[in-house]
Amino acid sequence: MELLPYILDLAGTFVFALSGAMAGVKHRLDVFGILVLSFAAANTGGITRDVLIGAVPPGAINDWHYLGVSLLAGLITFYFPAAITQRWSPVLVFDAAGLALFAVSGAQKALVYGLNPVMATLLGMLTGIGGGMARDVLLAKIPTVLRAELYAVAALAGAAIVVIANMLQLPSPAAALVGAALCFGLRVMAIKYGWRLPVAATRRRRGRDPGSNPQPPPEDAG
Amino acid sequence: MELLPYILDLAGTFVFALSGAMAGVKHRLDVFGILVLSFAAANTGGITRDVLIGAVPPGAINDWHYLGVSLLAGLITFYFPAAITQRWSPVLVFDAAGLALFAVSGAQKALVYGLNPVMATLLGMLTGIGGGMARDVLLAKIPTVLRAELYAVAALAGAAIVVIANMLQLPSPAAALVGAALCFGLRVMAIKYGWRLPVAATRRRRGRDPGSNPQPPPEDAG
Amino acid sequence: MELLPYILDLAGTFVFALSGAMAGVKHRLDVFGILVLSFAAANTGGITRDVLIGAVPPGAINDWHYLGVSLLAGLITFYFPAAITQRWSPVLVFDAAGLALFAVSGAQKALVYGLNPVMATLLGMLTGIGGGMARDVLLAKIPTVLRAELYAVAALAGAAIVVIANMLQLPSPAAALVGAALCFGLRVMAIKYGWRLPVAATRRRRGRDPGSNPQPPPEDAG
Repeated sequence: MELLPYILDLAGTFVFALSGAMAGVKHRLDVFGILVLSFAAANTGGITRDVLIGAVPPGAINDWHYLGVSLLAGLITFYFPAAITQRWSPVLVFDAAGLALFAVSGAQKALVYGLNPVMATLLGMLTGIGGGMARDVLLAKIPTVLRAELYAVAALAGAAIVVIANMLQLPSPAAALVGAALCFGLRVMAIKYGWRLPVAATRRRRGRDPGSNPQPPPEDAG
Repeated sequence: MELLPYILDLAGTFVFALSGAMAGVKHRLDVFGILVLSFAAANTGGITRDVLIGAVPPGAINDWHYLGVSLLAGLITFYFPAAITQRWSPVLVFDAAGLALFAVSGAQKALVYGLNPVMATLLGMLTGIGGGMARDVLLAKIPTVLRAELYAVAALAGAAIVVIANMLQLPSPAAALVGAALCFGLRVMAIKYGWRLPVAATRRRRGRDPGSNPQPPPEDAG
Repeated sequence: MELLPYILDLAGTFVFALSGAMAGVKHRLDVFGILVLSFAAANTGGITRDVLIGAVPPGAINDWHYLGVSLLAGLITFYFPAAITQRWSPVLVFDAAGLALFAVSGAQKALVYGLNPVMATLLGMLTGIGGGMARDVLLAKIPTVLRAELYAVAALAGAAIVVIANMLQLPSPAAALVGAALCFGLRVMAIKYGWRLPVAATRRRRGRDPGSNPQPPPEDAG
């Protein structure tokens, strides 16, 4: 039960690092910037989870493999970007795979540390979305997770499968596989078919009724 | 003395979550993005404080109520945004209320954990401004606190009241009330009357005197 | 061996706080915003390092001197910005000095806490680049470190000198001096001569060959 999250963690690290490196290549960062972004995209979710559950130093700091895997993915992307960026943006697929693997491994680690089911599910989701959020914040963009098609929902579903299977004492590897497949499938289908969660119905034109304020609300909170 | 900060924390969580959700609605995030932003705006300040004082797992991770209150505020905002956004931007008022409640509860928790008066005051301020900073960073904006009318000063004043009252052994609930009222009042008055702290007098035109460099300084640090 | 990192830390705090304050002045923040940015730029790297190695509360929270030095630098910059911003942007020099001092002191503290050589080097680099990243993220910009001339490489080199000297049991103060000088020199030379790390060769025009997709890849990952 402890080997599985480790392997999933490293696999997720690799694909998230690819996603971070691809975003860095797009933004014309230099090779070291790309490696920093690879590491940040790959490890921020796990590091945040570990700090929050009190597992310091975090695995990604204490264990060479996370660093090595992140750098490897960054270098591969740096030297062969064209092979990857051609045609359909592969960032989305790598991102979906990383999301799935991290949501599952994050939930498993939280369970190992004795968190209750709801919080283990949420920490799984956080592990999944944290890296992508860090990647986007570092590139001064609104994180994908806040806009994208079923992003966090997919992570939540994958993590929930793992936690529910644990409660029902079902075999952990199978649950991880099913959870990761569900998360990955949901996310990829959402991208392909443009599934989106609803957006709040702020009718900006509604200000026409008499007596209401015709100006739009101020753009900025400060 | 331990119940009071808890109640203040939950109230602050609710209003900051409203503030985060409103900002999310404005930026056309989907329902899950809005819930993530609600949670981040409401809990980042407290989580950061707890990690810094070594109280892990942080209250917001360990205790359902913070999550529940955040999601509730996010869903209310999602379903009834028009009622709130009409006329005068309410984000500012919610934000001021959250600032006041968090500055006070943050200072109280830091005192409970035995921090010295100055650092308890600063952690109160950090608790107050952390959530709003996270909300703005996630939306790729310069945080309100760095620009806005008496934002951090108000939080500092509210936290200082609590800490000073604690040093003078005055009753804690009254101090919390006075501190929160002072912070809220300062911030709302500053918004209403446009009170601002001074800005540094960088005279860009000053480069006219002979021998000086006519070009403006480079925009970017790198 | 414990006094040296402390003094280096305070010196690095001062220069990074200057760098944060200068960036705040450029973005027309008010005096409190400038002080917040001074503190964030000066202490985020060290606070992150301390949280990751389990040294909570972090030095910058527990010890008045960091706060005092940060505020002092912020106030100096606020009251005398013109003297500093004239001609060549001094942010870069302050930034390079802070980078050098923090990379060295960060590596030393990590060694004191018993981390292995590779991770101590990386934490030294993180201490060096963390503050500047926080400064830039708070200003909604892509961090300098991800683009700039030999930024993180310089920090890495400085930290590595300290760690290697420690392994060889060479005198610590001399190693710190050499490491800081190497880091500072590399960074300043890189700025002066425009040394840059290579950027990945994404040939956007390459999509001309038959059968390939003429559209550029989608800009956004979500």
